[in-house]
Amino acid sequence: MKGAVLYGPRDVRFEERETPKIVKPTDAIIRIAAACVCGSDLWPYRGISPVAQPTPMGHEYCGIVEEAGSAVRSVKPGQFVIGSFFSSDNTCPHCQIGYQSSCQQHELVGGAQAPLLRVPLADGTLVATPDIPPDDMIPSLLTLSDVMGTGWFAADAAGVKPGKTVVVVGDGAVGLLGVLSARLMGAGRIIAMGRHEPRQKLAREFGATDIVTERGGEGVSRIKEMTEGIGADSVLECVGTQVSMMQAISSTRPGGHVGYVGVPHGVKLDGGELFFTHVHLHGGPAPVRRYLPELIGLVWNGKINPGKVFDLTLPLEQVAEGYRAMDERRAIKALLRPQ
Amino acid sequence: MKGAVLYGPRDVRFEERETPKIVKPTDAIIRIAAACVCGSDLWPYRGISPVAQPTPMGHEYCGIVEEAGSAVRSVKPGQFVIGSFFSSDNTCPHCQIGYQSSCQQHELVGGAQAPLLRVPLADGTLVATPDIPPDDMIPSLLTLSDVMGTGWFAADAAGVKPGKTVVVVGDGAVGLLGVLSARLMGAGRIIAMGRHEPRQKLAREFGATDIVTERGGEGVSRIKEMTEGIGADSVLECVGTQVSMMQAISSTRPGGHVGYVGVPHGVKLDGGELFFTHVHLHGGPAPVRRYLPELIGLVWNGKINPGKVFDLTLPLEQVAEGYRAMDERRAIKALLRPQ
Repeated sequence: MKGAVLYGPRDVRFEERETPKIVKPTDAIIRIAAACVCGSDLWPYRGISPVAQPTPMGHEYCGIVEEAGSAVRSVKPGQFVIGSFFSSDNTCPHCQIGYQSSCQQHELVGGAQAPLLRVPLADGTLVATPDIPPDDMIPSLLTLSDVMGTGWFAADAAGVKPGKTVVVVGDGAVGLLGVLSARLMGAGRIIAMGRHEPRQKLAREFGATDIVTERGGEGVSRIKEMTEGIGADSVLECVGTQVSMMQAISSTRPGGHVGYVGVPHGVKLDGGELFFTHVHLHGGPAPVRRYLPELIGLVWNGKINPGKVFDLTLPLEQVAEGYRAMDERRAIKALLRPQ
Repeated sequence: MKGAVLYGPRDVRFEERETPKIVKPTDAIIRIAAACVCGSDLWPYRGISPVAQPTPMGHEYCGIVEEAGSAVRSVKPGQFVIGSFFSSDNTCPHCQIGYQSSCQQHELVGGAQAPLLRVPLADGTLVATPDIPPDDMIPSLLTLSDVMGTGWFAADAAGVKPGKTVVVVGDGAVGLLGVLSARLMGAGRIIAMGRHEPRQKLAREFGATDIVTERGGEGVSRIKEMTEGIGADSVLECVGTQVSMMQAISSTRPGGHVGYVGVPHGVKLDGGELFFTHVHLHGGPAPVRRYLPELIGLVWNGKINPGKVFDLTLPLEQVAEGYRAMDERRAIKALLRPQ
């Protein structure tokens, strides 16, 4: 089969790869219905995270179980399933309290930008939909594998509560779905920070009540002005740079919450500064598995349509164009359909 | 009057100072029943925090209201009161959600190691006891002004819950009272980290179930061993150094909580490292004012005796010896009684 392999900065190739096989009896093989390019794929694509060797790309996936290992009990061939970018046994102490992305057995599920994918710990990682979904629901289901679950975790980690004021730092797909999550959790005011017009439009569609285009210190000043000098109750950090992290922390009121899900790159926090902000800080790789049953229900019942973040759909073989479009910010998020 | 003034590293003088007076109508003057030396006083005493000019010392206090400004309504002369080390109006948006130490009008109450003290914003800062307390209750009431409130906040910020496993990093007075707080909140297991024998004894008396003497990476390994590789649910950081902070974060299970109250000195947190720990982080200067009514009740009714942290009592004029004894770790905490 052919899949996406990253060789180095801006060098993604669609090339022959070994067809995945069951390695352990707890594995499953999925026939990918749709995959996509993640904002976090851009770190190595841009050369910011080094690429030691040619790396099969893609960690967001949904599709039909093609084959299940002999020990797999909870899913079976023919079912449509969604899983997290980290596998989990869903039984260890960390999984039991809802931190499946810190599962004692977790590993990164890699190589999803391909027609077939091996998923380890299938029982603890995959969740089946009630039935085979209609084709137009697939983009929304795909987001549950990472971006929607990550936006949801950001809002959850930021303690979003009904009626409260929420700020979302970052207008990528995760930030936009953080806006949607905050709305679902009943936020009273949702201020999206971003300067890109098509994204502002989608942010408003998802529930943003205000847009702030300034960033850094100026952005913080705007938030303070808009909140009578108090700051926001909950701030979602969905980028992962020093500027965005400090923007998030400084926009939060004392006693407020920052939920940070942007994978930090070169972020350093000064303990003394943080101390006097009085914020709650929580984040990390989203425990997507925790939220899958609930979010599948919301998509299945037509309550949410997070698939709107895909503004570019390409056949899988054009995966390199998907990376380019996202890198150049021509696309929010690229959906890839194997033929 | 004579009070303590810090001139520079290890140079505390008991010398003539101006007698405090009402400056604003919201001020009160307190006749100090007891004051003490704080662990945080040792930072400038040791020259770690610079001392720009001779500085009146002391920010923990209780005593009788001597005089109240014309606008003061909630306390009156003759009442015994306790206040926080930060003044607060107790009405601003930050105070209203319980973060009085981030009050929009807060200022440090300084110069309490003296017979008289000016407290700004008396209405929002001071809480009166039900009556004049017996003399032997004064040490415990004094701790509510800072160390007990701070230990309590550490446990609260660390989300201590009944039956859970708690680690306390730091065996100073705050750490010891963090142990007491965790016990009151119903913790199932309380592991105190410290290597000083008299402090271990007091930790056990306050409710510690285990003592770990190792620190840094070795300390973390011990905690992991003791928790079947999981880590603690709640960790109280009561020191403020890089080693203690990392020890706290690394001892916490994914999804667990770190409550940090040691004023950070030179602490830098790597965003990427923190991200993958999945911990909740919350702390800062304790909003002592929030807890005063509840904690006064506990002391008044004999439920707790946090004053046991004072293992040295000196007349105020020997304040310099109090600093020396704490600096050399001969004393956990020195109580100072004006004559």
